[in-house]
Amino acid sequence: MNIEEILLEVQDGRLSVSEASAILGKESYREMEFAKLDTGRKERTGFAEVVYCSGKSDEHLLKIFKRIYDTEGEVFGTRASAHQFELVRNEIPEITYDPVSRILKTGRREKELRGRIAVCTAGTSDIPVAEEAAQTAEYFGTFVERVYDVGVSGIHRLISRTAQISEANCIIAVAGMEGALPSVLGGLVHCPVIAVPTSVGYGASFQGLSALLTMINSCANGIAVVNIDNGYGAGYIATQINRLAVGD
Amino acid sequence: MNIEEILLEVQDGRLSVSEASAILGKESYREMEFAKLDTGRKERTGFAEVVYCSGKSDEHLLKIFKRIYDTEGEVFGTRASAHQFELVRNEIPEITYDPVSRILKTGRREKELRGRIAVCTAGTSDIPVAEEAAQTAEYFGTFVERVYDVGVSGIHRLISRTAQISEANCIIAVAGMEGALPSVLGGLVHCPVIAVPTSVGYGASFQGLSALLTMINSCANGIAVVNIDNGYGAGYIATQINRLAVGD
Amino acid sequence: MNIEEILLEVQDGRLSVSEASAILGKESYREMEFAKLDTGRKERTGFAEVVYCSGKSDEHLLKIFKRIYDTEGEVFGTRASAHQFELVRNEIPEITYDPVSRILKTGRREKELRGRIAVCTAGTSDIPVAEEAAQTAEYFGTFVERVYDVGVSGIHRLISRTAQISEANCIIAVAGMEGALPSVLGGLVHCPVIAVPTSVGYGASFQGLSALLTMINSCANGIAVVNIDNGYGAGYIATQINRLAVGD
Amino acid sequence: MNIEEILLEVQDGRLSVSEASAILGKESYREMEFAKLDTGRKERTGFAEVVYCSGKSDEHLLKIFKRIYDTEGEVFGTRASAHQFELVRNEIPEITYDPVSRILKTGRREKELRGRIAVCTAGTSDIPVAEEAAQTAEYFGTFVERVYDVGVSGIHRLISRTAQISEANCIIAVAGMEGALPSVLGGLVHCPVIAVPTSVGYGASFQGLSALLTMINSCANGIAVVNIDNGYGAGYIATQINRLAVGD
Amino acid sequence: MNIEEILLEVQDGRLSVSEASAILGKESYREMEFAKLDTGRKERTGFAEVVYCSGKSDEHLLKIFKRIYDTEGEVFGTRASAHQFELVRNEIPEITYDPVSRILKTGRREKELRGRIAVCTAGTSDIPVAEEAAQTAEYFGTFVERVYDVGVSGIHRLISRTAQISEANCIIAVAGMEGALPSVLGGLVHCPVIAVPTSVGYGASFQGLSALLTMINSCANGIAVVNIDNGYGAGYIATQINRLAVGD
Amino acid sequence: MNIEEILLEVQDGRLSVSEASAILGKESYREMEFAKLDTGRKERTGFAEVVYCSGKSDEHLLKIFKRIYDTEGEVFGTRASAHQFELVRNEIPEITYDPVSRILKTGRREKELRGRIAVCTAGTSDIPVAEEAAQTAEYFGTFVERVYDVGVSGIHRLISRTAQISEANCIIAVAGMEGALPSVLGGLVHCPVIAVPTSVGYGASFQGLSALLTMINSCANGIAVVNIDNGYGAGYIATQINRLAVGD
Amino acid sequence: MNIEEILLEVQDGRLSVSEASAILGKESYREMEFAKLDTGRKERTGFAEVVYCSGKSDEHLLKIFKRIYDTEGEVFGTRASAHQFELVRNEIPEITYDPVSRILKTGRREKELRGRIAVCTAGTSDIPVAEEAAQTAEYFGTFVERVYDVGVSGIHRLISRTAQISEANCIIAVAGMEGALPSVLGGLVHCPVIAVPTSVGYGASFQGLSALLTMINSCANGIAVVNIDNGYGAGYIATQINRLAVGD
Amino acid sequence: MNIEEILLEVQDGRLSVSEASAILGKESYREMEFAKLDTGRKERTGFAEVVYCSGKSDEHLLKIFKRIYDTEGEVFGTRASAHQFELVRNEIPEITYDPVSRILKTGRREKELRGRIAVCTAGTSDIPVAEEAAQTAEYFGTFVERVYDVGVSGIHRLISRTAQISEANCIIAVAGMEGALPSVLGGLVHCPVIAVPTSVGYGASFQGLSALLTMINSCANGIAVVNIDNGYGAGYIATQINRLAVGD
Repeated sequence: MNIEEILLEVQDGRLSVSEASAILGKESYREMEFAKLDTGRKERTGFAEVVYCSGKSDEHLLKIFKRIYDTEGEVFGTRASAHQFELVRNEIPEITYDPVSRILKTGRREKELRGRIAVCTAGTSDIPVAEEAAQTAEYFGTFVERVYDVGVSGIHRLISRTAQISEANCIIAVAGMEGALPSVLGGLVHCPVIAVPTSVGYGASFQGLSALLTMINSCANGIAVVNIDNGYGAGYIATQINRLAVGD
Repeated sequence: MNIEEILLEVQDGRLSVSEASAILGKESYREMEFAKLDTGRKERTGFAEVVYCSGKSDEHLLKIFKRIYDTEGEVFGTRASAHQFELVRNEIPEITYDPVSRILKTGRREKELRGRIAVCTAGTSDIPVAEEAAQTAEYFGTFVERVYDVGVSGIHRLISRTAQISEANCIIAVAGMEGALPSVLGGLVHCPVIAVPTSVGYGASFQGLSALLTMINSCANGIAVVNIDNGYGAGYIATQINRLAVGD
Repeated sequence: MNIEEILLEVQDGRLSVSEASAILGKESYREMEFAKLDTGRKERTGFAEVVYCSGKSDEHLLKIFKRIYDTEGEVFGTRASAHQFELVRNEIPEITYDPVSRILKTGRREKELRGRIAVCTAGTSDIPVAEEAAQTAEYFGTFVERVYDVGVSGIHRLISRTAQISEANCIIAVAGMEGALPSVLGGLVHCPVIAVPTSVGYGASFQGLSALLTMINSCANGIAVVNIDNGYGAGYIATQINRLAVGD
Repeated sequence: MNIEEILLEVQDGRLSVSEASAILGKESYREMEFAKLDTGRKERTGFAEVVYCSGKSDEHLLKIFKRIYDTEGEVFGTRASAHQFELVRNEIPEITYDPVSRILKTGRREKELRGRIAVCTAGTSDIPVAEEAAQTAEYFGTFVERVYDVGVSGIHRLISRTAQISEANCIIAVAGMEGALPSVLGGLVHCPVIAVPTSVGYGASFQGLSALLTMINSCANGIAVVNIDNGYGAGYIATQINRLAVGD
Repeated sequence: MNIEEILLEVQDGRLSVSEASAILGKESYREMEFAKLDTGRKERTGFAEVVYCSGKSDEHLLKIFKRIYDTEGEVFGTRASAHQFELVRNEIPEITYDPVSRILKTGRREKELRGRIAVCTAGTSDIPVAEEAAQTAEYFGTFVERVYDVGVSGIHRLISRTAQISEANCIIAVAGMEGALPSVLGGLVHCPVIAVPTSVGYGASFQGLSALLTMINSCANGIAVVNIDNGYGAGYIATQINRLAVGD
Repeated sequence: MNIEEILLEVQDGRLSVSEASAILGKESYREMEFAKLDTGRKERTGFAEVVYCSGKSDEHLLKIFKRIYDTEGEVFGTRASAHQFELVRNEIPEITYDPVSRILKTGRREKELRGRIAVCTAGTSDIPVAEEAAQTAEYFGTFVERVYDVGVSGIHRLISRTAQISEANCIIAVAGMEGALPSVLGGLVHCPVIAVPTSVGYGASFQGLSALLTMINSCANGIAVVNIDNGYGAGYIATQINRLAVGD
Repeated sequence: MNIEEILLEVQDGRLSVSEASAILGKESYREMEFAKLDTGRKERTGFAEVVYCSGKSDEHLLKIFKRIYDTEGEVFGTRASAHQFELVRNEIPEITYDPVSRILKTGRREKELRGRIAVCTAGTSDIPVAEEAAQTAEYFGTFVERVYDVGVSGIHRLISRTAQISEANCIIAVAGMEGALPSVLGGLVHCPVIAVPTSVGYGASFQGLSALLTMINSCANGIAVVNIDNGYGAGYIATQINRLAVGD
Repeated sequence: MNIEEILLEVQDGRLSVSEASAILGKESYREMEFAKLDTGRKERTGFAEVVYCSGKSDEHLLKIFKRIYDTEGEVFGTRASAHQFELVRNEIPEITYDPVSRILKTGRREKELRGRIAVCTAGTSDIPVAEEAAQTAEYFGTFVERVYDVGVSGIHRLISRTAQISEANCIIAVAGMEGALPSVLGGLVHCPVIAVPTSVGYGASFQGLSALLTMINSCANGIAVVNIDNGYGAGYIATQINRLAVGD
């Protein structure tokens, strides 16, 4: 519904001023003292709000988790610490925490998983970022195939898995150090590749900058890149693409 | 067909050694003196080979254009110069050239355009990159909606077009200078946003690096980024996503 | 008038749908084939639209200049070339061009100039950027005091002019190379200092990056920075500040 | 009073040598063993000296706080630690400390607050920097409207507050990650926008560098930028601008 | 054996499908839950797999060490911590740890050391990286001459050792700060120089970036560079070169 | 012969002072007005001096070419322009010029080529740098296998050539853009890989910096890197390695 | 004479107001329309003003040259073009121009040259910068020893000249590429070394940034660095040091 | 004594082989297991060896301190920790430690201090680096005037001390943040200014990089720069310059 249609409905009395105002933005978030929960978000984008836990004060984190949990019946947070897990568990006993992916979420996850994406890593050190991506995608209802430790310096490991990887609607390629995995994948498959540079490496890896540059400069087609260590962002956009494929 | 299946067919005699060898990689490109045309590419990825014209010698460019044209019945090149247009026209009279997008292609383009993507730009100076993206997507069979000059410093221009933009399966957001357009778009729509930083700007824009960093750091969801000025790459991946949506 | 008030007026019939739509953004720009002239801009921000000429095609530039000139009765462009001057002069004979500031504008400038700002430069090579700032401010109705070539390596030149500079409501400090002028000015005056790094220099000046960093890190108070060589931006914000001081 | 006037008064005997010397700089600071307190500062710039606490030794910090407190009757420090609070409280019992803004100041703050500025943040993690800005401005006598968590990825939150924000004489826009908030604000309001990049973010945010570049490259008008996390500097220059508006 | 030969043997029945599949890559690594041990590596490259210990979880590290130790009869890890030493010692009592080089390996090293390489350092702080290089080379069967603390600021120290250094088949030159040692060595010897920048330094050394740039830009011939602090990589390639010289 | 031995021979009269002085460095170069030709170089390093032509004045270039040609009977220059070819041809008629590699050398090259190195490129645009490497190696007596256009985005092209590449004593891997070729090669072969980043690319390739970082961070073993576009340096060190292998 | 003394003399009538004002800064430069010639400079610093010609308009350059020539009897400019030479020669026939150093100066230079500095370069391409340094020092009365093409990759060339170099009061070390010359010199001599990075190089030399970093990080003592290609600055400070040594 | 002279004396028997060898470099350092103490250093450069304590192991540090103390009768170390002080005091009871400058040295300092240098700082946070510079210079026999907290944002503090500063033979200017102090000093004095950037600052100061760039780009004359926080290096070169002035 665009602006003009909204205005016509207001003129016609089909829509009240407060309804129209809400649609136009005034009320589509919930004012908290320190934050504006984006409650219109699910309506607007098809995804519930996810909490970025890192750096939030204990008090703020608790309030946000409880508010979302009360409203949505579930809650999902990224980059959480073990301390934050303890904190939230006192209020929401069913909360669970995965120390690898650092995801803090309510546990009853029996959603139907649809379509298929593949999450690949170059090495074992890239797994925490990959798990953030995979579990995010699963939270949003996507079936995930994990293909870990298939970096390009032992190219046969990757090639032997190509058929399996190729069945996905979208591939998330996670790699640190020189970050060459997405380039090779891009030449082997039909579907889009979301590249995630990681901060794995040392010296001139510059905390992931080198891998980021590699992926941005890829000469392969069908590759787009998210921020360093941004597993969540990759899981999110891969879900969007997968939903298009399964017709959501 | 994976490796094991190929081997079984060789064992059974259903596949000759040379056929198998070809499938396994030996012959899926055509050896030229100076290049290896990737003739298996369309089979492997669903897209015909596109020629990156910039920096190619006259002799090489001509040979590659003719070879592809003879094989595929059409040919499509990016980053071509007016000089290269003149050069190729002598051999392939039906070639056409768009000085804005710098695309050099054979003209008979009456393909059915399917699905829908939107190509948005922040300013008018971003149009050449946007056209490279749009025409690439059209070459691969995608319907493209163009929404130009809707940068965030006049946010009302963008908001009034949101409904129209939201109908796309994928949005390409092209912006130079501070590159904030994808962040705002990401919060307004359901579909994935492919962000293209451009080298438009001066001073601390550092030829597009600043816009690239903005897009990579976007706090909005559903955004992935391609190289600076890489309209072609954006058009390619947007087509992949659009094909998934229309069921190709 | 906020959203709710607009909706109430639509409901009451005091405002038509098309009027409301215009206010809400739909019509506050003028659609051209390639650009969206921001005709609601003066209303919204108090400043008419200014044309950034660099990189615009001849055809686009001409159309934009004529459209604004016809609508506003005056037009003002920055970063214009001598070629663009020739081009526009054929259509708008009263246009004038200053090769130093590279400003292209209609000539009858007898506006009342109000308040006072000072534009200072460290060296003579910074004058083109300073003139872009000064003439922009004058175009928007600000009285400008020019104080050029008072760089910190001959500090007595600056100190002897301090009394004069101190009478301004806002100071624009333009400097390349090490860019130290704003720091010294910041400690000598009461009013805000807008710092403009320039690309003047060589070697490790990195086209103005070094001066930009100096200014951003200034230990003096009351300093804020615009982009390298962005005289226009400095003239604009200085005018905003000056208007506040004179009560506009 | 400029140099010549001072000299004339010395010649005439209206000014003693020591008075003139003081005016000309010799005595306008107070020599401490390790520092030169800038006691002429309030006279010269209209603002009392503020203490940057971070990195100061306990002994130096205490001496400076006591000296200023004894001279001015109040004292205000930024970037203080909890330890420094304990330290100073032993000597100045009325001192108070805000762990969010990290401001350490004497408590009796019943100054009249004049004019109006708005302090906006993109997210909740930007609040500490915003509070440093807001409380600095309040210390210098400015009325502050706080508008937090209105980042551009949920643009409706910002637009619904635009009317309120627009009443300010100056806006401070605080944002980390991609830092796009000032660009959108710049297009919506009449008044100057002071942009403060924050170190909030991860990966390619490079501790605020990315946000800084975004803001410096803003294509919106009326924006100038201070250092990463420099809430104090933003509060200071916003106060200067606000004073001009209210006629101080 | 190339692809065609493998296929012919499959056709002829000399090779089973599973054997061929293994050769073509399917089985040349051992699937662990979290990693793919590259057991075909020694066959393919002539070097056993080395474990990069840093950042591995205790559980993963132990499993990998035991698996390699059981399979190969020896195991060698780099960048190990004292904690990891304790951990592994519980399972593999003969393991030894060198806190300088941070190498964790099984002890019975009585391999014949062949050929000769020289490992040189500019200062004493570069020794840990040099030892990683030297011990890696020794693990792979190379005789190593250590020449430490011969940096260019006391050039006589280096020149007096030139005859000795010149007997090597390959030189590893390890240096931090300005990293000039490889340039001088390159002009004095016949053999290839592998340059290793270290993170030793402060200020503008930028954790080794400055030394890396120095070495990459060397105007001397016969120099190639590995990553900052990458002693292992230097020891590896020096061994490859030494093996060529001794006819392995 | 080390310093002490030289001194003993001087003491014994077996060596004259001028001979010793020459050995110790005094006379091992030839003083020209503007340069010091390193005539002891071949003795010291086993390689004749090569001329870096770029940026040399016509007068200097001619003098240097003639002096080396007269002394050595042959001369070899890199990064020469067509203009420099014309210039030198007037004096040395047998000179030849290759516009692709930009190598300017005397023509009678019937040296025996020994051993084997492979020069691989990722794309066709990398060929000029590869030819500089290959022809340098050939000038110094190395047999070169050229394997061009085998970039990782079409990995089958590379795999089908692996057997051929593996016969080399050393591989030079030349790649621009994301520069991933050396990583994949490093995992496939036994011999050292010299990686050469090229300035081929655009946007965030930063004139080869991105490829350089990729190669320096390679997680594959047996890779060392030379400067961007430094084909000469790669050909030189590959020759050193090849000579070790063939027993020179 | 400090401020207090000046004021006392004014009080006593020994100094007129205008004299005092001049001393305090008011008149120690000459106001031109566009510049402030620093005529008090020679008095204040012991050096006459030098003209940086690059980027100056023809009109400004001519005026400045004539004014200085008329006042001082001589004039000296750096970074001049051949065009500027032609321009000035029309007005000042005795002007001379050196295309290597790009210095434009009046010719009658028979000053006594005192003391001794050495100007060393790593290669022949560094000579233009070295000549700017040498001729600047000579203009200010310093005797200069030139030692060119003694880079560290052929260390014997440098060592054989050490005795000669050591006689200088100050050494200017000019080097591009990896810039290691100052480090080696710093360990061989007693006197201060002024290091000048040059933009000579390619690839990762980043127009001299790499050499600059090398020099700043030098582990040798007695080295300080000026800007890339800043021969003038090096010649200036070397002259200051030489004057101290000869007792000026 | 140059090489030829040494050889002549050997031939004549005036010099023994071992003496000559020592002079030529063989024995001018003392081999320790892990380091080569540069005992010829004082002879060669006029300065005793100074110990850079940071990062040295306890065992190495102790051995080096004792060896130098035994040989020279005094010892001087920079960047020492309190722990290292405790460590050394057990062996050398007269050792003293200054926690501000982090200098660890033997105490009986009654050397005659000659000449005069001035050490200036912009702020109080720069004092630790300044003290490293000042105490280094004093250790080498230089009289030091300290002028602290005279940064350019309160320019009158600096100007009132100019007369005093001007008496020095060399000035060390220490500044962090924007680092503008050397530029202003350079225009006020005759003598050379050694600029020391410090890591004082936050945000875009990038640990001193910004101040370093400011100083390298200074438009003032007579300025050369050392590494970030390198007080020692500044004290060393200032001493060299001061010695030239006093005729050492």
